[in-house]
Amino acid sequence: MTPYSAWFAAQDDPDERYPLTEVVYYSRSGGLLEVRHDLDALRQRSADEWRRLFEGRWMRTTWPFGSGVWGKKEWVCPTVDDENIVSMFEGGTNLFWAERFGREIGVENLWIKMCGNSHTGSFKDLGMTVLVSVVRQMISEGKPIRAIACASTGDTSAALAAYGAAAGIPTIVFLPKGKVSVAQLVQPIAHGATVLSLDTDFDGCMRLVRDVTADPNSGIYLANSLNSLRVEGQKTVGIEIVQQFDWQVPDWIVIPGGNLGNTFALGKGLLLMYELGLITRLPRIVCAQAEHANPLYRAFCNDWRYEPITARPTAASAIQIGDPISINRAITMLQRFNGIVEQASEQELADAAARADRTGAYACPHTGVALAATIKLIDRGIIHPADQVVVVSTAHGLKFSRFKVDYHEHTLRDVVGQYANPPIELPAELDAVRRALDERMNARPLN
Amino acid sequence: MTPYSAWFAAQDDPDERYPLTEVVYYSRSGGLLEVRHDLDALRQRSADEWRRLFEGRWMRTTWPFGSGVWGKKEWVCPTVDDENIVSMFEGGTNLFWAERFGREIGVENLWIKMCGNSHTGSFKDLGMTVLVSVVRQMISEGKPIRAIACASTGDTSAALAAYGAAAGIPTIVFLPKGKVSVAQLVQPIAHGATVLSLDTDFDGCMRLVRDVTADPNSGIYLANSLNSLRVEGQKTVGIEIVQQFDWQVPDWIVIPGGNLGNTFALGKGLLLMYELGLITRLPRIVCAQAEHANPLYRAFCNDWRYEPITARPTAASAIQIGDPISINRAITMLQRFNGIVEQASEQELADAAARADRTGAYACPHTGVALAATIKLIDRGIIHPADQVVVVSTAHGLKFSRFKVDYHEHTLRDVVGQYANPPIELPAELDAVRRALDERMNARPLN
Repeated sequence: MTPYSAWFAAQDDPDERYPLTEVVYYSRSGGLLEVRHDLDALRQRSADEWRRLFEGRWMRTTWPFGSGVWGKKEWVCPTVDDENIVSMFEGGTNLFWAERFGREIGVENLWIKMCGNSHTGSFKDLGMTVLVSVVRQMISEGKPIRAIACASTGDTSAALAAYGAAAGIPTIVFLPKGKVSVAQLVQPIAHGATVLSLDTDFDGCMRLVRDVTADPNSGIYLANSLNSLRVEGQKTVGIEIVQQFDWQVPDWIVIPGGNLGNTFALGKGLLLMYELGLITRLPRIVCAQAEHANPLYRAFCNDWRYEPITARPTAASAIQIGDPISINRAITMLQRFNGIVEQASEQELADAAARADRTGAYACPHTGVALAATIKLIDRGIIHPADQVVVVSTAHGLKFSRFKVDYHEHTLRDVVGQYANPPIELPAELDAVRRALDERMNARPLN
Repeated sequence: MTPYSAWFAAQDDPDERYPLTEVVYYSRSGGLLEVRHDLDALRQRSADEWRRLFEGRWMRTTWPFGSGVWGKKEWVCPTVDDENIVSMFEGGTNLFWAERFGREIGVENLWIKMCGNSHTGSFKDLGMTVLVSVVRQMISEGKPIRAIACASTGDTSAALAAYGAAAGIPTIVFLPKGKVSVAQLVQPIAHGATVLSLDTDFDGCMRLVRDVTADPNSGIYLANSLNSLRVEGQKTVGIEIVQQFDWQVPDWIVIPGGNLGNTFALGKGLLLMYELGLITRLPRIVCAQAEHANPLYRAFCNDWRYEPITARPTAASAIQIGDPISINRAITMLQRFNGIVEQASEQELADAAARADRTGAYACPHTGVALAATIKLIDRGIIHPADQVVVVSTAHGLKFSRFKVDYHEHTLRDVVGQYANPPIELPAELDAVRRALDERMNARPLN
């Protein structure tokens, strides 16, 4: 028997508790629930013992601890049985030293945490492995769960469908009809999710999925962002970054923010390390928002006074959110980390992604937002040249081919593709090829 | 100083040798060169010592050994200096237990090696890190290399461009004009490669890139499949599979084959383990080909007598090759591994990929070929229900969204999408949604 435990607690009343395997989404007062851990039990192991335990498990073959998430099982979700864990070896992604890009923008010590090099191509895998594993635990305990549902047009539905497919648990995705292409939906469709195409907008889909899952007899479990189980997996990203620096803390971690669960999760993981003595200082966190969807940025500029907005279209579609679910807990967390919020225009995010690509990264537009924010903070002298900076890349660039094609073909909305790199058309003649290459090489000599 | 060494040797005359940093592509007789290692030096370490060394480095932070390729540096390319290595933490990809799919097709012990969960989304990263690192070594030694070039419409150009971009070494991609879309080209374009769009077909591009690089004064290094440096990185895939089974050898490894360098590399890595005593038996290797591009399959059925063919279009576009460069060495290798060649029709490969997706994988069409071959060999009683089988997945499904969309929209050439999973259109009404979900759940109960 594990001595560790965790439970849902109401944010406004820590004594209001529920088991993690209970089908419950809100506290009695209607607020979010949050996963709390028995810190006294965790403190029984010393910081050194935790580090050794985590190092010994890192990317190894003992189920389920080779996963970056489940290698920290005691900190994430100690109450799920190993045989119920649904894992695709999430986490452990490359901490890419963006050496050339860092030199270009003025910090040599720049790193990109490539969370998109994963099974479904985004960081959502980190949280979804926890949620789907807990659901499998519920089913094994006899709870009448028939399916897991979410309303999402992107990475969340892809991750939910993949983990559900691996576990043999049916999944349901609610989507606005005509607003999402099959190309955007191909992951949940391929993974056999029931995809409902509804004659409404995205908010209408969200209302419907909440209504369907609110019925305790529905047997359908809700996997949206308000479900705090996912935060427990996502919080490992910060722990991993520190571990990958041999347990040293970087000066800055920059993360793109929309619904802000990820920003909260990043801080939550780092704080747990701090409380258990694995680190003795905290990094500063930068949350980067698209200018077209910047309610947190506006709050930051207004002494943290928050007002929801109507988000405008942005290439960083996953963070096109005007009224973030995790706004309050993200603000509290950022204040704890001496945090900063910065924003990026469509031009800035697209150019930052293009520049990063030319130096070996392959940045999704959200990563572009974070990179653009980093550039601005360097230029303003807030991030210093000698600082160590980590940018969290939330998805694989392969999920955003259209964005990249449009940039390089000069058809991206609101953007001039100033780093576009069009093909050179030539006759199939050796001399013509040699001449063209000589010209190009002389214009852009070897780095 | 390392006691280990490796060199290029002519296949037909092992005494014809060249340093790995020499710009040389063919032997004097015009054949392929192959990388040979000083086996006596490697034998100075015992099998146990090698295993312990590799385990100690596995996915850790000490540069460059955390990479799955460079963690085996002594076996791969001992002659490159660590500071010249260009690495994106390649290898170490998930060995996914395809539990549900295996049960469906009749082998419980089925695993998929997810080589596509990588920086550029394909197994080509394994080889390209070696080639680009050796080029950086050449440059550091004063060789006048200005750029690296290849003719490729897919994964090779993507990997070359990414590694070149990270290293600051210019790259050049030769392509037939009008035959490749910008979407297919977006990785090399984004990574800043010089993309030449030439008024010829693919063979014409191949001739031109060979002609350009044949000139010793061109300063342009050729990165095509005939360059055996890439084999050295690719051979780690078999070593990793064995390592991920705690140094146990599976019964079968199934790999898709086109130009057949990968099939050869898989065998080469396993043979090195065998020669150095890390394993005491060999798996059987299955090379899986698309029926539309099956010269090796035809040879296998004809007592290994090989004739080139004209390949027909296949969804498995990366293996649409009628006259494979590595045909001879692949046949020799398959004979050594008691190998089998199997083929898959367009229908078979697409269905196998779709079925795998519904159970949690996300298979590219080439992986579909390998999965379909596996199913056929199980059905014929050649692979037995208790066998342990590993299928090598060569690319991330995210690179083949079009293939998947076409399958699920019933627009894939030569294929009926019998596992297609179209969205269900509904009005935005709670009762209608509940009814539709009840129907679906009853038709397909919880697994």
